[in-house]
Amino acid sequence: MTPIRALYVNGTLTPSPGESHTDLLIEASADILRKQGVEVDIVRAVDHAIAPGVQPDMTEHGASEDAWPALWQRVLQADILVLATPIWLGDASSVTRRVVERLYSESSELNEHGQSIVYGKVAGCLVGGNEDGMKHVARELLYSLQHIGCTIPPQADAGWVGEAGPGPSYGDEQDDGTHVGADNDFTKRNITIMTWNLLHLARMLQGGIPAEGNDRNAWERGERFGFQNPEYR
Amino acid sequence: MTPIRALYVNGTLTPSPGESHTDLLIEASADILRKQGVEVDIVRAVDHAIAPGVQPDMTEHGASEDAWPALWQRVLQADILVLATPIWLGDASSVTRRVVERLYSESSELNEHGQSIVYGKVAGCLVGGNEDGMKHVARELLYSLQHIGCTIPPQADAGWVGEAGPGPSYGDEQDDGTHVGADNDFTKRNITIMTWNLLHLARMLQGGIPAEGNDRNAWERGERFGFQNPEYR
Amino acid sequence: MTPIRALYVNGTLTPSPGESHTDLLIEASADILRKQGVEVDIVRAVDHAIAPGVQPDMTEHGASEDAWPALWQRVLQADILVLATPIWLGDASSVTRRVVERLYSESSELNEHGQSIVYGKVAGCLVGGNEDGMKHVARELLYSLQHIGCTIPPQADAGWVGEAGPGPSYGDEQDDGTHVGADNDFTKRNITIMTWNLLHLARMLQGGIPAEGNDRNAWERGERFGFQNPEYR
Amino acid sequence: MTPIRALYVNGTLTPSPGESHTDLLIEASADILRKQGVEVDIVRAVDHAIAPGVQPDMTEHGASEDAWPALWQRVLQADILVLATPIWLGDASSVTRRVVERLYSESSELNEHGQSIVYGKVAGCLVGGNEDGMKHVARELLYSLQHIGCTIPPQADAGWVGEAGPGPSYGDEQDDGTHVGADNDFTKRNITIMTWNLLHLARMLQGGIPAEGNDRNAWERGERFGFQNPEYR
Repeated sequence: MTPIRALYVNGTLTPSPGESHTDLLIEASADILRKQGVEVDIVRAVDHAIAPGVQPDMTEHGASEDAWPALWQRVLQADILVLATPIWLGDASSVTRRVVERLYSESSELNEHGQSIVYGKVAGCLVGGNEDGMKHVARELLYSLQHIGCTIPPQADAGWVGEAGPGPSYGDEQDDGTHVGADNDFTKRNITIMTWNLLHLARMLQGGIPAEGNDRNAWERGERFGFQNPEYR
Repeated sequence: MTPIRALYVNGTLTPSPGESHTDLLIEASADILRKQGVEVDIVRAVDHAIAPGVQPDMTEHGASEDAWPALWQRVLQADILVLATPIWLGDASSVTRRVVERLYSESSELNEHGQSIVYGKVAGCLVGGNEDGMKHVARELLYSLQHIGCTIPPQADAGWVGEAGPGPSYGDEQDDGTHVGADNDFTKRNITIMTWNLLHLARMLQGGIPAEGNDRNAWERGERFGFQNPEYR
Repeated sequence: MTPIRALYVNGTLTPSPGESHTDLLIEASADILRKQGVEVDIVRAVDHAIAPGVQPDMTEHGASEDAWPALWQRVLQADILVLATPIWLGDASSVTRRVVERLYSESSELNEHGQSIVYGKVAGCLVGGNEDGMKHVARELLYSLQHIGCTIPPQADAGWVGEAGPGPSYGDEQDDGTHVGADNDFTKRNITIMTWNLLHLARMLQGGIPAEGNDRNAWERGERFGFQNPEYR
Repeated sequence: MTPIRALYVNGTLTPSPGESHTDLLIEASADILRKQGVEVDIVRAVDHAIAPGVQPDMTEHGASEDAWPALWQRVLQADILVLATPIWLGDASSVTRRVVERLYSESSELNEHGQSIVYGKVAGCLVGGNEDGMKHVARELLYSLQHIGCTIPPQADAGWVGEAGPGPSYGDEQDDGTHVGADNDFTKRNITIMTWNLLHLARMLQGGIPAEGNDRNAWERGERFGFQNPEYR
């Protein structure tokens, strides 16, 4: 069996080597995968000059530089893709949004079966904030990931948020020496379930997804795979 | 191979036998599945008195009637679950929301492996409106479906919306005798891709999902499946 | 000065006389208004048989009963409208969604200036859950309220959510006799700010909003209020 | 009366002098305001190196440059703030998200009454895409704007989206010489209503919002403005 590879994209607003709470969530998940022999790659997106735009390489459209094409190669290497993001004002970070836009910019690329090039990859997300917004952000990220062609396993989101109002973030040391969220059973359990389900599905999908019905080249040529308009009344 | 079964839940606000645009989207998808030998079940939720609440049977909590327990049995029979909904003011219908609440009310039910009872089922959604909101609604529905334990195949949403502003709905007959959306290649293609991907994944998951890491009973007993808190700084 | 009137709509799934955590949030806000001489009306929507549909009176469209027309009269009496809801699976309750659909069903009703009938009313929302989702739900509710014609004052949402994962809800008594959320400064402060801002804006808008530019009857007749298409390139 | 000033922030991904569909929506709205004597300022955010982060000036936190402090001064000058954005994959652009993050980074700045510094400003949004997502994006933007302290007038969003599926964008020239969306009555009417309502409310709020109940300095000092915890049961 070919070894499984996983890519985590950290959407923190803080460049390296600054500390990232989101990175702690990534480490908790990646650690489980590494123990199972998965090759783990982690990228902090804000360290890379990813150009704005929705084309695969924005230097061909006027940008002076664009780190995306190199990152895209790392996405293509991965069987498991996890977007990890902090929450700001209830939503994913602008850095994460930029990554989603650029993933989307590749959506016309197809594999040899006419399927989206990312078919067969599985995806999940990790979301952290000091209060509120985990499910909202997970909706956005998981939706985008399945839209471009990834498969979403059960319970593919995990993270931590605190009580309503400003407060500490995941992993912050408190006065008593403990770390925020470290005892949260839900956070720990959901990271575990998400991570294992990503692994299970990645293994099941290593041979790809059958091409019948989702071959966009065949659709272009007129194949309809049994589709008929309903009988309108 | 055991035959695959699919359940479509129509969240229209219109009781039978009133016409439902959402039903047309369902028919287009179900027709493909039937041709592949899938047993198709369709329920119009508004025809059933589904009680408000988040317990499996609300008659045990004061409701005079509750159609949910019977519908839940139909969910349990299905390998493929599709939520179909109209859009009102940019969001899923209240009837669809009620169904999601009741699906959620079953989330503590586990199978013999300690997994959510719906593990192994795959899910998608169909969304229609006269303008705007398809992706927003799909986010909500697909998120909820993976949250309770379904797997989401690639490109698992489809539907139709029109240009900004009030206007006709999917399938409405126009002055020239054509039907709104009937020529929309995107709608037709995405219904086809979604439907086939639901079928492919349902077949791949007929044996369920491996239980390692997602066994909630084992987690309760203290098994951690390799999870360790990250090294906080 | 005519006294200000406020209507709170409680979207709990629990019929009276069952306890509602959402009701506690309402009481905290309503108490401030009453002290300022505001006449407060509170309705628990689930106690009323509000029919599904998007017409003002669904008994004219086949429903056997419809409590909405009577509730709509209470909306029309109010200067301040607050939607209050619990969060289930990260979203507003199905009961709240039903209320939004029915508010929307009135959106073609205009006042004597051709403005939406609710022009001059101000609106806010109260949201409570045991974890996560306050901002997401507030987005939906505030958007819907401004869409139908209400004005949204600054910081017009408040509520309480707890740390990630299942747990107690707002106001639940804990082992030490304290109540969940009772000490949350953010919750208390935001309820206060929201409530006062609703009152300030309601007073400022008692004379309504000037009709120039928003008179839909005039627009129908061809008046354009200075609108011109931009110069397309 | 002091003249009203309006700032439109264009969140397009295309740097100047590239063409922006979003700019056409801005021009349609700004034109109405200019005719009423409003001083209009327009900024294309992508032309400015706005640093990632949630502090007022990120050069104090390691960024080599940060265009935000200068842009923030332009925000402070405005009575009317309009965020305008394209839709990508159903959501606001990463450039717009960056602007929202930086607006949020100013949320602890208070005026002399202890209110958020933007109290008294009114806000709206313009949203355009080739299909779907207008309401979703408007929810996010209007929520964020009221959260930081702006007032949202009735019907404060406008824009254009097309039928489901890829297609032309607002203002694109078609084969017959017409421009996409140019005939859309809903788009034209809603831009007009939004623009006028922004102007009406801006005039009504030129004296600011009364400070009682929303003075955060007073709250810090212990003033509670009538707030009491509800009677928990």
